[in-house]
Parts: sequence; structure tokens; C-alpha cells
Amino acid sequence: MLQEKLLEPVDLSHHLSQIARARAPSPLKDLQRYYGKPGIISLAGGLPHPDYFPFASVGGDALVPNSFPLSSPKESSSLSWLWNLISGRKEHTIPFQIPKYAAKLGELNLSETLQYNMASGAPLLQSFIKDFTEKVYRPAHKNYATLVHTGNTDGWGKVVTTLCNPGEGVLASEYTYPSAMSMMLPHGIKAVAVPLDGQGMRSDALRTLLSEWDESLRGMPRPHVLYTVPVGQNPTGTTTQSARKQEIYDICVEFDVIIVEDDPYYFLQHKPYSLPADRTTCSNGASDDEEYISQLVPSYLRFDHQGRVIRLDSFSKTIAPGCRMGWFTCNPIFAERLERQSETTTQGPCGFSQAFVVKLMLEWQYKGYLRWLKALCMQYQRRRDFFIDCLHEHFTLELSMNATGIWEGVPVYVASLKSGKGLKSEIRGPPMFSFTPPSAGMFIWLNLIFEHHPSFSTIGHKALEMRLWIALAEAGVLFGPGYMFAADSAADDEGETHDTGHFRISFSNAEYEDMKKAIVIFSFVLREFYNNVVY
Amino acid sequence: MLQEKLLEPVDLSHHLSQIARARAPSPLKDLQRYYGKPGIISLAGGLPHPDYFPFASVGGDALVPNSFPLSSPKESSSLSWLWNLISGRKEHTIPFQIPKYAAKLGELNLSETLQYNMASGAPLLQSFIKDFTEKVYRPAHKNYATLVHTGNTDGWGKVVTTLCNPGEGVLASEYTYPSAMSMMLPHGIKAVAVPLDGQGMRSDALRTLLSEWDESLRGMPRPHVLYTVPVGQNPTGTTTQSARKQEIYDICVEFDVIIVEDDPYYFLQHKPYSLPADRTTCSNGASDDEEYISQLVPSYLRFDHQGRVIRLDSFSKTIAPGCRMGWFTCNPIFAERLERQSETTTQGPCGFSQAFVVKLMLEWQYKGYLRWLKALCMQYQRRRDFFIDCLHEHFTLELSMNATGIWEGVPVYVASLKSGKGLKSEIRGPPMFSFTPPSAGMFIWLNLIFEHHPSFSTIGHKALEMRLWIALAEAGVLFGPGYMFAADSAADDEGETHDTGHFRISFSNAEYEDMKKAIVIFSFVLREFYNNVVY
Repeated sequence: MLQEKLLEPVDLSHHLSQIARARAPSPLKDLQRYYGKPGIISLAGGLPHPDYFPFASVGGDALVPNSFPLSSPKESSSLSWLWNLISGRKEHTIPFQIPKYAAKLGELNLSETLQYNMASGAPLLQSFIKDFTEKVYRPAHKNYATLVHTGNTDGWGKVVTTLCNPGEGVLASEYTYPSAMSMMLPHGIKAVAVPLDGQGMRSDALRTLLSEWDESLRGMPRPHVLYTVPVGQNPTGTTTQSARKQEIYDICVEFDVIIVEDDPYYFLQHKPYSLPADRTTCSNGASDDEEYISQLVPSYLRFDHQGRVIRLDSFSKTIAPGCRMGWFTCNPIFAERLERQSETTTQGPCGFSQAFVVKLMLEWQYKGYLRWLKALCMQYQRRRDFFIDCLHEHFTLELSMNATGIWEGVPVYVASLKSGKGLKSEIRGPPMFSFTPPSAGMFIWLNLIFEHHPSFSTIGHKALEMRLWIALAEAGVLFGPGYMFAADSAADDEGETHDTGHFRISFSNAEYEDMKKAIVIFSFVLREFYNNVVY
Repeated sequence: MLQEKLLEPVDLSHHLSQIARARAPSPLKDLQRYYGKPGIISLAGGLPHPDYFPFASVGGDALVPNSFPLSSPKESSSLSWLWNLISGRKEHTIPFQIPKYAAKLGELNLSETLQYNMASGAPLLQSFIKDFTEKVYRPAHKNYATLVHTGNTDGWGKVVTTLCNPGEGVLASEYTYPSAMSMMLPHGIKAVAVPLDGQGMRSDALRTLLSEWDESLRGMPRPHVLYTVPVGQNPTGTTTQSARKQEIYDICVEFDVIIVEDDPYYFLQHKPYSLPADRTTCSNGASDDEEYISQLVPSYLRFDHQGRVIRLDSFSKTIAPGCRMGWFTCNPIFAERLERQSETTTQGPCGFSQAFVVKLMLEWQYKGYLRWLKALCMQYQRRRDFFIDCLHEHFTLELSMNATGIWEGVPVYVASLKSGKGLKSEIRGPPMFSFTPPSAGMFIWLNLIFEHHPSFSTIGHKALEMRLWIALAEAGVLFGPGYMFAADSAADDEGETHDTGHFRISFSNAEYEDMKKAIVIFSFVLREFYNNVVY
């Protein structure tokens, strides 16, 4: 399955945009050999003196890596949140400190991390990133580079500027992360929607799209960049499995397309959902780290024998969004151009962030970070389970294994309102929405089935989605409105999604009791929304 | 002098670039009123749960605001660095802590600052910035906006994208901050050099340039954006005084030009330099804060009755570069477009940085921060004095008040090598470089006078500058090579700077003894460089 031979990347520099080509080499390139010379006195930079940084030290209390359990007990989703609430779980922490000046050579210190830095970040951070990428993602081409960035949103923006010219299109899932698309549009770069199924982007649809591309009909050249969130896809929660990734990779080789893998939810890969009655204790406790890593869906890097994948990693979901930090993994030609761009824009990530993340990794070590990630995944899985359990409690859910369209190949629950008085719960109303339990990430994507709504034939699903969204908001619950996630405005009006609205619901952040309350409100609002439907 | 009437800004939206116009309004704009509703349950965002942020708290030890003295004793520059070295000055600090969860409403906490934030930053930061801008810069138009950014380099990049189209030019001082220019070039936006004098950008030259602009000859429309570092200009160290600013502002009104004021050195405004023999104790101790502020050269904002100034402020020089944080002050139309750009690129600044800067300002308060800034200025002034004293010690400096060209209107020292054996120090060699003591900032700009060099007539000043730079680097000293600071490559080959090379020397960061050593090496290398010149 995976390319085990580690090959040199092929030359893909023809993908560089006009802007990327026009970027000058680093102005210090020729002089750089003097800059690191031991003992040299530099009066060249515009650096303030670290004596005047107003922090003698910074520090804090870090949670221990095993702060959260590796297993999710059967009853966890309905009861243990209550238990946590009552018991006031005590946190175990490690105190840490970062001094302004290092006591010994190589020690992390503020005089360096809070100083102007290379756009490539602090050396300790660079080596953590490189080591982690090598061990966890095991890229198939050996000559890859890693380069720190200031978060995946900015990372993606830099990739677009580096690869795309105005008038071009970028392949993206028909529903995708809105900011990624909003970034492109003002630069005259449009999304080209690729249909989704239960595994995310469809390889067959991608092939058809590329092989039948008609430049004059489409008004743009065949796209040479593909944007994908392959794990816990935002907003649909689906995950592209290994075989599908290989297919997509091969298609991209055939049609010379660069794959941009935006993968913030990689470590939140959940076990399949079971209804509470069928649930058993679930564990993410593979004692062997190698085994744990091998159970994760491989990154596109693992298939990338040519160097045509740009992977975006982020600390936003594994540490905190406020880190505003992550990294690119890609071929060295792209990395060099991305680094030049960082030099004249964001420069390196915030020094506090670099210091705190490096310090945490030094305290935890690689093994401790993996332990943290395993448990983090279980926490989000528990939240997913709890949320779907709530849906199960307040709606009649019918399981279907034969869905077509967006949920093809995965189990789908079709939800209808329970009968009004709770007496004859076997009498179902019409289906109101359907969903598949997400296989990773933070989101549940509801297909809203409006065809039984009295106003459906007159105003259609788009207007109904918005009306239902407003009715919910007025009642005190906010879901993500589906229209915001359409990769291009056309995608919503054609193809297989034509008769549904959508909501993206995040189970990652709200308190358990609030999620429960939200579902109760949702069921009331839906009932009201369909108030003249007879059961 | 200053516009005291606070007027509404005029409509300057015709300055927006095609990209800025094409940016969609915030996709949440219509729905925003629901987002802040008290008690609402939001399952809309893609937010991780703060329980999983692996820091129970962060904190540190902040220096007290009066850590550094307000006065610089007469002998400070030559002796007190030694005193500091021996006495091991003890730092007074304030311990502080930022908990994950607030104990009471409105308290700074990590669960919010490390979460995804608005691109406009944390509310506590927003109000600090707005308040500081109002009190210190007192903008002349009342309807201005402040907006946080991720450092002036990125801030400037966002301004360029917001105001300029490919093929346009930006007015900039003939020597200027290189990264600001490197950012523009790949976007097809070129610098248009405006000559400098001892007050920075020349208003007469600006008027001539604009009034005589010939679009067909220049190959671009008349520039509508002006970039300036008006205080402690990078690289020349000059400061644009009040009357000059008024002239430039008026010209920009007349020719409809937007002024971008990149002002990181604003609080490092030095008193005039005196030779050690003439120096008296110098103090920055205006007890009244109003008086202190009124002694600072006013920002362009102070003249800006139309809203055509975009000011860039940075914490890099006053707190630390690693903050990667600063702010725009400008009219609300520009601010809104800049905010949209941040939303789809950098988002808000790093949460650690926001937390630490806010906490420091809460601890110090406005008054404490001003105390810090006053003393910081004195520290850099001491460094400037020390550095020039070293030059005085190892070169013969002749003061001239009648310089023309780049140093017109300010005192200029012309340096020559002292006689070889130190016996007849009154016998001077030919002039080798000249400089004016900087009035602010971190840099001394040397004009290298190569006309007496034996190879001058054959290879010219550019090649000599590079040869001297390399000779110095080989001897263990790095200065900033002058060619890097030329706004456009043409500027170096024409006009008044045609027969000098340049070095930018930073006195802000090196240890005192290293600066001393660097000057000794510089004098040796210069002597060697001119080795066949007969005195």
C-alpha cells in the first residue's frame, strides 16, 4: 500500500505562482555565513537589548500528560460528566519556568525566544517539529522540509500565494472550511467543488472533473492545487481512508496536482459510534507508541514519493488555538519560497508561543505528548458519543446502511420527532434530518430534510435553513449555518445536495449540560417549525 | 500648528485596492447579533474545550516600571556600564499569574485568551490600545479606529494589499526599511524614492516629485501611498519634526496621498548628542505625564483631520519583538478591510502574547508604562552616547554645521583616522566617513567617503562598500551593509548619494565592551583598507 522506497522529490517548481517566483532571494543570503560565526560582534541587526524585556522569567503550571484517561467507560457519556462536575477533579501539574537568560548553553531562554528570530523559528522548536514529523507521518520522500507557520489559516494563505495566480481554481470538497475559501476569492482564485461521500473527497468525481476539464467552458485552466481536510473533515466530520488517499494521490500524479493537506484534527480519530445499549468500554491505550501511530490513518505524506504534498499541522487543537502556531511539511523548493514570504510578512511565530510550546514538549517529551494526544482523542470521542446519545434520547433515530450521495458507504441515522406526548413513541413523524456519526474531529453535519415542510415547494431548502437557524437562535441555540460551508455558491444549487439544508454542530466546546439543553430546544423548535404538519 | 478641531474623516475609500474591494463582508455579519447574546448556547464555532489547554496557569516575574533610571549621569556612557557589570544590579520584579479560568467576571484568563479570538483581539487589549492612542497620539479626527496586528512588518504588508494594485508605486525615503520594500516587489509594486535630509523625508522633494509626475515617463500612475519611518528613521536615525510633518501632511492632502506612519522607535526620542567634555547630566524625568507626552514629536495622527494616516505601532521595541504584536490607527473604512484580511490570514495575535502584554499593562497601569518608556529611551540614548564616544576616542571627529545633502540642517561629524602612533593626533588623515548623531531610535548611519581610496576611480563606492564590509566581517565585526537599505536600486546610482557608501550600525543590542571592541577593529580595518594612503 505505502511507498516504502524513499525517493528524491521530482522538480515541481513549475507550480510556483508569479508572485512566488518574483520574490527575491534572502537579501542576506550571500552574507549569511558570517552571521553565525562564533565570537563575531554583530552591530548589523535592529535588535533591542534583552535586558529591556520586562520579564525576568515566565512560567506556569503544565498539566501532566496523563491528565485524562485513555479509556472511555460504557456509561461515560451520560453520567461521568456529572461525576466530574460533582467531584471537582483535581488537576496534577508540573511547575515550569523559563528564565530570561540561560544558565547553561542551549537552555531555553527569553532573551532569545522573545528576540527577533528567523522566520523558521527557534532551533529547539525546529528540531521538535522535524523529529515529530519523521516519527509520526513518515514522509515517503526523504528530502522534505518542515517550516513553522503562524497557524493553518495563515499557512494556507501563504500556500495560495505561493502556488496560485489570479484566474485559477483550487479543487476543494463541495463543503469545506470557509476561511480557506474566503482567503482566495479576493485574489481572483475560485473554489472548484469536488463531491463528497462518507470518506470525504470522492476520487472518482475528482478523476472525472480533471479528465473532462474544459478550459473554455470553465473559464479557467485545469486546477493544479487541491485543498483537503482529510481527517474529521470540516464540516462533515468524515475521514479519508488509506486506499482512498492512494487513489487521490495517484490521480494528482497523473494530472500534476499539488495536494494541500490541512489536518488539524489528525489526532482526533474516533472509534465508530454505537448506541448506548450496544456500547462497550473503549480504549485508546495501545501501550506501544508505534502501534498507536500505525492505527492512525496515514497522512498524504506517507504516499508522497514525489514531494507534491504540502501538509499543514497546527497546535490549535492539541495545545490551544492561541498558540497561533503550526508547520508546513513539503518539498524544499516550496518551503524556501514560503519562508521568504514569512520573512516579509508574519516573520516567525510569537516568541511566547514558541517558548511555551517548546517548554511543554521538553517537559512532556515525545512519549508524553503522544500520551496526551491519545487521551485528548478519547475526550472528544466521549463528547461526540454524548451528543449523539442526546439526539437518540430526543429523536427517533433509524439506522440505515444504504445511504447514497454524501453519506455513501457509512452508517446513517435518519431522525424524526418522537410523538408529542411520549406515549406512542413507535409512531414516527416524517424524517427531519440525517447524519453520520463523525469518524474524527469536532463536528456533526446534519442534512436537513425539508421536503415535508409546508413551505418547501415555495421557498426551498436554502431559505428554510436560514429560517430554522434564526428560529433556533431566537430560542437560544446557535448551530453553524450550512450555507457558509459551501465551497462555491454554485455547489449549493446543483448536484446531490439539492434538496437538503445543513447545520454544522460542534460538540467540542460546550458544557455537557448545555449540549443536552440544546438538543431539547432543537426538538421543540423543529416541532414548532413544522407546526402544521400532522403526525 | 495642530488641528484642534476634531472633524469627521473624509471619504477615502477610492484608495482601496481591487483585492480589498473584493473581500467579502464578514460571513457572520448578519448573524453576529445572536453571537454575543447572554445565555446563548453556541455549538457553532470550531472551538476546542479549554479544559484541554495543557496549562493550569501561566505567569512570571515582571520588572517594575522604574527598573531603569530616568537620568543619564555625565559619566554614564564610559563608566557606568562597568559599574553595572561589577555590581550585578539586582532586578526588582512583580510576580504575576494568569489562571486558566477567571475567579471573577472580566478577569484575564487563559480559557479566553488561548481560545480562538476575534481578529480584533481580546477586549482588554482593545481597550488598552484605544485608550493609549487617545492619550498619547491624540488623533485630530475623532472617528478613528484602532486594530491590533501581528507586528509592523505584517501590518505594513496588510496595508499594501489593502491600498495598492500591481503596477503602482509607493513613496518611500531613498534609504528605508528593506523588509517593507521586499514585501511589495513580488506584488509588482515598486518604491519611488524621496530624498532625505537631516529631518528624514524632504517635503520640497516630495512636492516636486508629485507635482512633476509624468505617468508615461515613469511607467506608473502617480503614487497615492507614502511609507515613512518618521522617528529614528531606519536606517538614518533622523526624526521628522512637527513643522515638516505638517508640510508633508498638507502635500498629501493636496495630492490625495495616504500616509503610512511606521513608528516603532517613537518612544526612543533622544536628546542631542554632546561630546563627553561638554556633556551634562541629562534627564527624561518630566514629572508630569502630559508634559512628557507634549515633548515628544507629534505623530502624523495629530495633523490628520481627514483620516488619511495609517499609523503602525509595535510592542517590539518597548516590550519585546517576540510579542509579534502592534496596532493600526486609521479611519474605520480602512480598519474594517484590514480586519477582514486578518480574519482569513493571521487571525488575532498569539494568545500568549495578548495575555502577557495585557497582564503587564494591568500591573503597570498607563502611568507605569510611561515611566518604563521614559527610562527605556534613556537606556538607548546612553548606548548612542557610548557608541559615539568610542568613535570619538578612536577617530578624529570634526564637527560641521553646514552639511548639505542628506545631512542638511543637522550637526555632522566628519571622521578621519588618528595618526598611526598616537603621537601627533592633531595631524589628520583624509575624511573616511561622516555621520550625524541620531535623534531617536537604534541606528547610526555612516556615510563612507571613499574618494581618497586608491581603487575609487576604478571600482566605485558600491564595490568598495562591499569590500570594506567583508574585510570587517573577516575581522569579526558585522555592520549593516548600506546597499540593502536603498529603497530602489536606482536610488543608489543617482542624486546626492552618488559618491558615498553606507553602513547602518546598531548600538541597541551589543554589550558595551563589544561596541568598544568593534570600533577598535573598525579603525584597524579602515587603516588596512587604505593601506597605501600616505598621511
